[in-house]
Order: sequence, then C-alpha cells, then structure tokens
Amino acid sequence: MRAFLNGKFVDRKEKIIRLEDSGLTFADGLFEVLRIINGIPLFFDDHINRMKKSAEYFNISFPYEIEYIKNVLRELIETNEIYDGEVYIELTRGTDLFREHKYQKSYEPTFFILTSPLRNIDPKNWESGASVFTYPDLRHTLCEHKTINLLPNVLAKNYAYNRGGYEALMYRKDSKGKYITEGGSSNYFIVKDRVIYTPEIDNILPGITREKVIQLSKTMGYSVVEKRVYLDEVFEADEIFLVSTVSKIMSIKKIDHTLFDGPPLITKDLIQRFNEFINLLI
Amino acid sequence: MRAFLNGKFVDRKEKIIRLEDSGLTFADGLFEVLRIINGIPLFFDDHINRMKKSAEYFNISFPYEIEYIKNVLRELIETNEIYDGEVYIELTRGTDLFREHKYQKSYEPTFFILTSPLRNIDPKNWESGASVFTYPDLRHTLCEHKTINLLPNVLAKNYAYNRGGYEALMYRKDSKGKYITEGGSSNYFIVKDRVIYTPEIDNILPGITREKVIQLSKTMGYSVVEKRVYLDEVFEADEIFLVSTVSKIMSIKKIDHTLFDGPPLITKDLIQRFNEFINLLI
Repeated sequence: MRAFLNGKFVDRKEKIIRLEDSGLTFADGLFEVLRIINGIPLFFDDHINRMKKSAEYFNISFPYEIEYIKNVLRELIETNEIYDGEVYIELTRGTDLFREHKYQKSYEPTFFILTSPLRNIDPKNWESGASVFTYPDLRHTLCEHKTINLLPNVLAKNYAYNRGGYEALMYRKDSKGKYITEGGSSNYFIVKDRVIYTPEIDNILPGITREKVIQLSKTMGYSVVEKRVYLDEVFEADEIFLVSTVSKIMSIKKIDHTLFDGPPLITKDLIQRFNEFINLLI
Repeated sequence: MRAFLNGKFVDRKEKIIRLEDSGLTFADGLFEVLRIINGIPLFFDDHINRMKKSAEYFNISFPYEIEYIKNVLRELIETNEIYDGEVYIELTRGTDLFREHKYQKSYEPTFFILTSPLRNIDPKNWESGASVFTYPDLRHTLCEHKTINLLPNVLAKNYAYNRGGYEALMYRKDSKGKYITEGGSSNYFIVKDRVIYTPEIDNILPGITREKVIQLSKTMGYSVVEKRVYLDEVFEADEIFLVSTVSKIMSIKKIDHTLFDGPPLITKDLIQRFNEFINLLI
C-alpha cells in the first residue's frame, strides 16, 4: 500500500516520521476521515475545508491547494485500488527540533494521507441496529475541531468494544443532569413524535454527515431541532441513530442494558434517502 | 545526537516512526521529562514509576525493566555528552495497522528516549521572577496522567509566549469562581501569612517537583495546605512560585498586568534549600 507524505508517495509501512514530530509529542494536529465509494471520495471539499478552518484556528500552516490534494488522492485511490474504502488525512504542526511547546512560524507541517479498504463492520449493525454504551465525555474543550487529541475517545470506544458494543455515547453533566454529547467517532440523532433532535454544536464536532443528514431531513419535511439532548430524552426517544463518515446512518437498538424495540421507521426512511443522495454523487 | 527507540540506539534525526503509530494518530501515549545535572538524571525512579502507573491505567504495555532503562539512559548521556540537560521519554500504544480506536493486546508499544542540553531560559526569570499569563484550562479529564494530549497546553503556553510571558497559569471555574489548576508545564504554589498552599490533585498532574517541594517545605517547618486555589487568593498572595523539572523553583513577579513586588523571602529560602537537596544527589 502506498501513502502520501509531504509531497511524496511512500510505502505505508515505511518508517518516515521523526521522533520530534509535534503530532507525536504534543498531539498538535488535525485529521479527517473520508469515505470512498466507487473510487470517489465523498464530500471531499467539506472535509478539506473543515481541516483548513481548524488549521487556521490553531495557526498551523496548511501546505497544499485543494486541487493538488484532490489529484494526490485520486492517484492513491488508483494505485491502491481502493474502490470502497476510507481515506485518513493528518496534518501536524511539523518537526519541532527541541520538543518545546513554543512553536516557530518556520515549522514545516507534516501532511499525510492513507487509504484503506472499508473496515470490517458486522452488517447486522445496520440491519437490526447497534448496541452502544454510555461513558463519560472526558475530553478537552476543543471538540469543535477534529484534533488528534483522541485518548479520551480511545477509552470510551474500548469500554464499549469490551462489552460487545459498536460505539460509546459520551455524556457530560450540567445542573439539569447528564446530556449525551456525541459518540466516540460519530454524532447521533433521536426521533420523538416525528420530530428529529440532535445536539447543537456546543463543544462537539460539527460532523460532515451530521450536517448532510440535517439538510436531508429538512428536505424531507421533518422538523430538526438542535439542542442539548439529555440522557432521559434519549431513553424516551422513539428512534435513535448514529451518523458518521464510516457508518453513514446506523440505527441504535440497545443503550447499556435498555432495548429499543419500536420500529425505526424514520431512521429507515432516512437511510434510504441518504443512500439515494450518495448514489447521485458516485 | 543519538536517541533510543524500541531496543536500539538510533540517530535522532532519522525518520523512524510509522505513520500509523497510535501516538501520532490518537495521542495514545505518555511522556516524562527528567532533568540531568552533572550527568545524573534526577528523580529517575519517581518519573519511571509514574509512567508505569499510568501505562497500567491506560492498558499500555510497559516494555522494559527500570534497570534496563537506567542503563540505556546512562549510555545516551555519555554518547551525547549531556551533563546539564533534559531527558524526554515517550511511550505510545504502538503501531496500529488500521488506524482504529479498537486496540489489540498484541500491539508492541513504541518507547523512545531523547536527551538534549538544557533549553535556553533567560536567567532573569529566576533572579527577578517570571511573568505569567492566565488562560482557560481547556484540557480533558485525564490530567492526573502525563499524556501526550497536549494541544490545550500548547495553546496556553503560546498565548503567554506571545505576550512576553514565561508560562501560562490555567484556570477552571466552579460555583465559587475561577481557580488556577496549574501551569502549561508546571505546578505552582502560593504563600500567604507564611503558610504554603498548592492545588490538591484534582485533575492536575501530581508533579515530581511539586511532591519534593511539599516534602521539603514540611521539613523546613512550614504548613502546607493542598486545596483548590482561587484566582482571588492567587492575586492576594504574598509570594507565588512555579515548580517543574526544568525550572525547578521559579518566583513569579507578574500575573497578567499585576505586579507582585513584595520580597519573595520564603521562595528564596526554598530555592536555596532545594538546590542544597539536589546537590546531595549529584
């Protein structure tokens, strides 16, 4: 498998990063995961623009034009023969010669792209709904950016995996109780009395799939409310579903030990319409 | 300069890390910084034991015996001729072949050691006290471990650097107001009416120097109180000082735009006694 690093195509297994890369020492970087279907990277511009915006926020220089990245990615997809798969893009502040918090404007960023076949996900998760587990949201206050500071997400998701779950739903607390922020690598929606709810952007990731699903739901005539969603509301919902680049839309069947056995009618409708929408792009 | 990586001595500038290292993609790792004086790494066992304890917490395998690491470090110090300097040790969960949150027990951790001459710090900071700036503590809820999830620290410290400061004092808020947690890479103490206060371990790092300074202060006959320290208390303190592996004990002269011009008598006493204590070890 080939990968792309700082202007060159390289072997993915090569050892090519320096010990002092600020991504490795300070988690001082950003990433994106894109879905490839029929060899086409979906919502390419949305992903790159999100990364560019965050790079600007963190004062990390963004090294390439969007067209250049598109061409590189096209070449990687062809070389690696990835028609149904994933793209991983990472940008770090670059080599930090002295492992110092103080960064210099002269740093040359590290930018790399990996492509992989689609990860193995049991199709039962889509067919009959996924099991998920709640876990405290231990993250920092920079969650509106897709940073590589992911250790809390690793803990949350492995908590769910170890219990046979597909994803962790992370919660924070306020004076009104626990509210669910997002999944370890997904956003989520609930449906109650035919109204669709999803957390507002309040230290959570403005997910690309989240945004597409909001738009699609509105097009289909549903009301969509963006607000803080409390655990009680989640447990009382008629339907719950995850959205992400990799899982697209996935119904939730079980949270902790509570089963949701109502028919996920609106979720199924959305899944079908989302797939139709994607079919127009590929 | 030589470095140590996974059982081998390597060139520090070599490109030796794979793109899929979970330290680089998930910030799934730990680090330690040690001070070398007269070729001796100070408080070696304390640092390694802290890292081992955190590795256990995060289920990252710790690859070497403490004696082995001590020998490696001795060799690095000699080869690189570092007599007054710093050691950086990092441990990550290791190579993750598919960039997945789900980790396998089979991962072989990445463990590396860098040594450097002491970084350049203007000696005026010690002589007449440092300027520091307050900045919100944007970090996660895993701050009792020395993880590489440091992007919030990078932001805080660069905020201070850009204003000519030496360090950022990070604050969180509770119902009683802002309280200062720690510096971007240091703990801190205040002195009020000859009593010494420092934040209790409440989602902050249990610093090695912090612990040594608490012990030393008690030996010297001072009362030391570990409690949440509010911004008001900091501004009303008679003396304030930072402690860290690199800066040891450093008086603070200015916070934001407020000058502290009382004589830092107890701080100076502690600095002298701490240096005497270190002289016994080297």
